[in-house]
Amino acid sequence: MLMSIDITQNKGLVTMSDLTTAEVQALLNEAQAFADGKTWAPSQPMFAANLFFEPSTRTRFSFEVAEKRLGLELLQFDGETSSVKKGESLYDTIKTLESIGADVVVIRHPEDEYYLDLLPKLNIPIINAGDGCGQHPTQSLLDLLTIQQEFGEFEQLNVVICGDLRHSRVARSNAEILTKLGANVSISGPRSWMNGFEQKYTYVSMDEAVKKADVMMMLRIQHERHDGEDYFSKEDYHEQYGLTINRERMMRKHSIILHPAPVNRGVEIADELVECERSRIFKQMKNGVFIRMAVLKRALAHI
Amino acid sequence: MLMSIDITQNKGLVTMSDLTTAEVQALLNEAQAFADGKTWAPSQPMFAANLFFEPSTRTRFSFEVAEKRLGLELLQFDGETSSVKKGESLYDTIKTLESIGADVVVIRHPEDEYYLDLLPKLNIPIINAGDGCGQHPTQSLLDLLTIQQEFGEFEQLNVVICGDLRHSRVARSNAEILTKLGANVSISGPRSWMNGFEQKYTYVSMDEAVKKADVMMMLRIQHERHDGEDYFSKEDYHEQYGLTINRERMMRKHSIILHPAPVNRGVEIADELVECERSRIFKQMKNGVFIRMAVLKRALAHI
Amino acid sequence: MLMSIDITQNKGLVTMSDLTTAEVQALLNEAQAFADGKTWAPSQPMFAANLFFEPSTRTRFSFEVAEKRLGLELLQFDGETSSVKKGESLYDTIKTLESIGADVVVIRHPEDEYYLDLLPKLNIPIINAGDGCGQHPTQSLLDLLTIQQEFGEFEQLNVVICGDLRHSRVARSNAEILTKLGANVSISGPRSWMNGFEQKYTYVSMDEAVKKADVMMMLRIQHERHDGEDYFSKEDYHEQYGLTINRERMMRKHSIILHPAPVNRGVEIADELVECERSRIFKQMKNGVFIRMAVLKRALAHI
Repeated sequence: MLMSIDITQNKGLVTMSDLTTAEVQALLNEAQAFADGKTWAPSQPMFAANLFFEPSTRTRFSFEVAEKRLGLELLQFDGETSSVKKGESLYDTIKTLESIGADVVVIRHPEDEYYLDLLPKLNIPIINAGDGCGQHPTQSLLDLLTIQQEFGEFEQLNVVICGDLRHSRVARSNAEILTKLGANVSISGPRSWMNGFEQKYTYVSMDEAVKKADVMMMLRIQHERHDGEDYFSKEDYHEQYGLTINRERMMRKHSIILHPAPVNRGVEIADELVECERSRIFKQMKNGVFIRMAVLKRALAHI
Repeated sequence: MLMSIDITQNKGLVTMSDLTTAEVQALLNEAQAFADGKTWAPSQPMFAANLFFEPSTRTRFSFEVAEKRLGLELLQFDGETSSVKKGESLYDTIKTLESIGADVVVIRHPEDEYYLDLLPKLNIPIINAGDGCGQHPTQSLLDLLTIQQEFGEFEQLNVVICGDLRHSRVARSNAEILTKLGANVSISGPRSWMNGFEQKYTYVSMDEAVKKADVMMMLRIQHERHDGEDYFSKEDYHEQYGLTINRERMMRKHSIILHPAPVNRGVEIADELVECERSRIFKQMKNGVFIRMAVLKRALAHI
Repeated sequence: MLMSIDITQNKGLVTMSDLTTAEVQALLNEAQAFADGKTWAPSQPMFAANLFFEPSTRTRFSFEVAEKRLGLELLQFDGETSSVKKGESLYDTIKTLESIGADVVVIRHPEDEYYLDLLPKLNIPIINAGDGCGQHPTQSLLDLLTIQQEFGEFEQLNVVICGDLRHSRVARSNAEILTKLGANVSISGPRSWMNGFEQKYTYVSMDEAVKKADVMMMLRIQHERHDGEDYFSKEDYHEQYGLTINRERMMRKHSIILHPAPVNRGVEIADELVECERSRIFKQMKNGVFIRMAVLKRALAHI
């Protein structure tokens, strides 16, 4: 409770459940406006601090470009070259950056829900750029934006979320928000990776999925989060659960492929399909910048 | 001698003893003006090169914010990803950055007095952001600014410097400059960590310190610089030499707590006191930016 | 063929052989104009992505300064803190940066000709900042600019390239372009390091070299690329193949010394000569910025 109050006050964003459906729609519209050429800058010079405690290319640079397009100054904090090595806590690090002049903090962190302890104690808006196997709300929003650009609305769309649902930072929140927005969500992939999802969503085989889906939402296999159990060879996985060239041929005429990237080419999806006509994978990256501009503006506009 | 001549010419800052009392006062006034909203920018585009050979959050970002507020462009040099790995000397690295376009160099380095060899050979101003167990002049200046904001002057103020004096980068220079400015400086902490200080300054117990001090200047225990000798458990240290909750209650009504951070919570100072009403710890960080703006302006204004 | 077509289209620069002699001259003239105070900025905000997969001080910061002087925004990609650790390919990394908003990519990479696979598939201009033991075209161009500033033209100039030709990124392309421009190129250094060069260029001893050369083009011994074979002690190397104090005395009155740096002082060249009157080593670094401005402008001006 305290948490949601704080979030509402400071306009940070740590999970998709912080947002009402109306707020989601407002963010998508704002992002689309940025995509269409809108510009915005804060009325005074502002600093964004980016704290990345895990390697990242896409998300880190996407936030950087978004921040620079909004005219923000950046403080790029790398977990490896900082006082965190001297044992400073995340709370003290953020308080420090706030004292020095940061107006908003973007954090990627390997721990699930690292933000729970922080939110009641901090006033500075926190934007979650991914926590462990937890959430990644700007990724969810850019997925939504890409779908909206394609189909105009979510009502009655068939979305199949495929693959490593258990370790995904977006599967659960995407399934929830898409359902709220009126889409029909199904799931596919190895049965043992579906934990919890099967109670709420229809399981379909990959062969069924490609015939049914308007949107094939592929997930990345998080090799770095698997530890030996449920082992598949790459070839086996691709054959059983991947988007193969044969399966792509069975997809509906207008349907599209999403993937948060980085792609394991030839595993989740055939190498040749990454840049095929149906693929919106690089479009998603473009949209990520606009979504982050909208989320940052929301955090800063009221200051 | 050569050294001080060079420093005077190029307006760098490597130790507090480079500065006369009048120059210290001028820097404090300039920093206060920046705190009050003054702005300044060089008449042409200028580049600052930040060379950090040790991890740092506070000092590094404080310089970055100061530089950006002055409209400088930054070259962020990280000891880990550079030609230093190919064995290039610090001198050659600085000459390189100067040739490429740097107008001022900010350096943190693990070696004491790393700058002694450099100063006679270089024209570019060097600002010392901490050398080994040596000096950290901008930290000293921000401590002074925080005290001045509180008390208006230094005359007759009781300042007790507490803790790990032996490894501190500011204890010696703070004691010297505060004495010159008219304050009464005492020291406290483990007897075996006082080396050299007891000849010049009055030793008091922590219980005496809290009753007497206008300013409790706590130091960070530099765990990373201790090697086994003089070992205290955290609990023992806190009980004997820390600013405990009980001791804080014995402090005078108007007196304040300083600490350069990062704080070892529950060791030098009780966790609950870090953000108590007397604490100026986060105010010190804010002031750090203004001090560094003043020091950078001094280095660049004459170019 | 495909490669050269792409390069011509996108105005990247990966090897000196991409450039006609006229294009080389045009770039030198543009760089000289920047050295003389010319400014240029793209008509819209643009982003440069710098991808450095090897440590570098000079080249990395030289590009950074060049980019900032052209008003570009930077994305600084460090091979160590990115999704490359998750196994992402160089192609996917560049496509990602392009999708996010990069307009030009600067790459240093340990693999020879890393760009061969990329060029036919990418539209974004690539500027090669050094590949393995391959090429380093902006280094070649800054060498040429430094010579041109000194002598006005290349016709009949005696240039001796000395030292570790086998591992040098510039020896081959410098020898070729200087010959095309009318200079007489000779080579010197350990015979076993001359591989291939002796068929095309005259070998001279170091004692002959210093008497003959207008330009002594010293190369860095790439210790990190040697693996035990052809071992010389530093002292032996210096005595036999280095530019010693005695040899410098035999140089012609007007002749100059070049070295790409970082210098192994006391090996390729005597410590005392690095900043002697004939040395253009730090001038080369200054010129590097102007060359990179010219190369970046060429890549971006047509977009």
